[in-house]
Amino acid sequence: MADAGDGLLGVLGGMGPLAGAVFAARLVALTDAQRDQDHVPTLLCNDPRVPDRSSARLGQGDDPLEAMVAGLQLLERAGATLIAIPCNTAHFWYEQMALRTRVPLLHIVQAVCDDLQALGAQGPIGLMGTPATLQQGLYQGPLEACGYSVLCPDEVGLAQCVQAIAAVKGNRPQEAFAPAAACIRSLQARGARAVVLGCTELPLAVPHERRAAFGCVLTDSIDALARAALAHRRRAETAKWQQPSASPA
Amino acid sequence: MADAGDGLLGVLGGMGPLAGAVFAARLVALTDAQRDQDHVPTLLCNDPRVPDRSSARLGQGDDPLEAMVAGLQLLERAGATLIAIPCNTAHFWYEQMALRTRVPLLHIVQAVCDDLQALGAQGPIGLMGTPATLQQGLYQGPLEACGYSVLCPDEVGLAQCVQAIAAVKGNRPQEAFAPAAACIRSLQARGARAVVLGCTELPLAVPHERRAAFGCVLTDSIDALARAALAHRRRAETAKWQQPSASPA
Repeated sequence: MADAGDGLLGVLGGMGPLAGAVFAARLVALTDAQRDQDHVPTLLCNDPRVPDRSSARLGQGDDPLEAMVAGLQLLERAGATLIAIPCNTAHFWYEQMALRTRVPLLHIVQAVCDDLQALGAQGPIGLMGTPATLQQGLYQGPLEACGYSVLCPDEVGLAQCVQAIAAVKGNRPQEAFAPAAACIRSLQARGARAVVLGCTELPLAVPHERRAAFGCVLTDSIDALARAALAHRRRAETAKWQQPSASPA
Repeated sequence: MADAGDGLLGVLGGMGPLAGAVFAARLVALTDAQRDQDHVPTLLCNDPRVPDRSSARLGQGDDPLEAMVAGLQLLERAGATLIAIPCNTAHFWYEQMALRTRVPLLHIVQAVCDDLQALGAQGPIGLMGTPATLQQGLYQGPLEACGYSVLCPDEVGLAQCVQAIAAVKGNRPQEAFAPAAACIRSLQARGARAVVLGCTELPLAVPHERRAAFGCVLTDSIDALARAALAHRRRAETAKWQQPSASPA
């Protein structure tokens, strides 16, 4: 595996573009740094011309795989040694993408599961996301493998997720909070003790400063993926120092 | 000149990294878009390993030119057809950078001057920035050429700029507002009717929602540069449609 400890973090963004940019910003904010030079070198490919992932999975749109692979290969050619993809639905193509690049890809669902466990979240876990993510079970298996029971939104809740996501993608974030909040509340009313914001537009719909009011763990798939990237770099750095041949220059 | 109307916008970020990421986010927010695919394809090289620009200009640090050129050439190889550099101080090397890439580079000082004029700002213009930007006159000539008189911070104000910038670069944005606000207020007290936030950390020190309280035009060099990129793309798009051979596909 490439040495990610001091390499370039590639970010396959654009899905959507605000989520890609905010991922880059949250990565900076979550890094322990005192000056520019302490931060993670990052290359963000924020190309939004990728066909819609949820529509494709539901048989209603073009396949995004080749556009995503083109982005991954751009990042690989530019020197990325680790890649993060801040789009949940894109992870339905994770294995196909991983076969087309030599660069290791973080997995956003694994990052969210790790985050839930690090936060000490208890189930049942409410799940929010795109129609494809919810209906085709991107999260359900991994969450159940961690011992969590999973609650999916009902039809009204699904429509609220779709509305919140579309408002963020359409540059109307102020219209995104109300439907997202209504969906969180209805999952809580059904017993959810934590809610996964399992589409990278959803953390943008529910600003950080408004989260405490819900009184439950809200796992943010942007922050979880950024933390996974930082943890991966720390592990690579530690491994480098532990190699007998490494000189601590 | 390359066709920037439908090409990839390169962003030479990392100076600092939060400013680079926020530039990408503001570009999205300022775009007239209804869905992912309407946004500007962007490639952000957010590599913070560039030596400090202000220190270098003041003879106190390594020359950043080769690191910046490496970033520009990475963006060029990856297909950028226009490049924005969200760092004011880096523009002391503008001509040297422009000689080392075939891709047109936007100029942040020009973008700020255009923005001041579009906002109908009246002088005198207060100027904030890094020590090098203020002491070596990055802005003074261009602003005077637009007919503006310019007010620079006194010694206390310069220290406030440095403190605000360092707090943002050190991931302590909550400590950045007070010194930045004090500098704005002292420039206003001396007669400034508009203030240029002439370092890309400064817009992060003074959040958008707190700006109206100052009662004067605050020109944000991140937003000005994002608007310049969008305007450049619109002009390239218009030019393409006006070519007799172009087919409006």
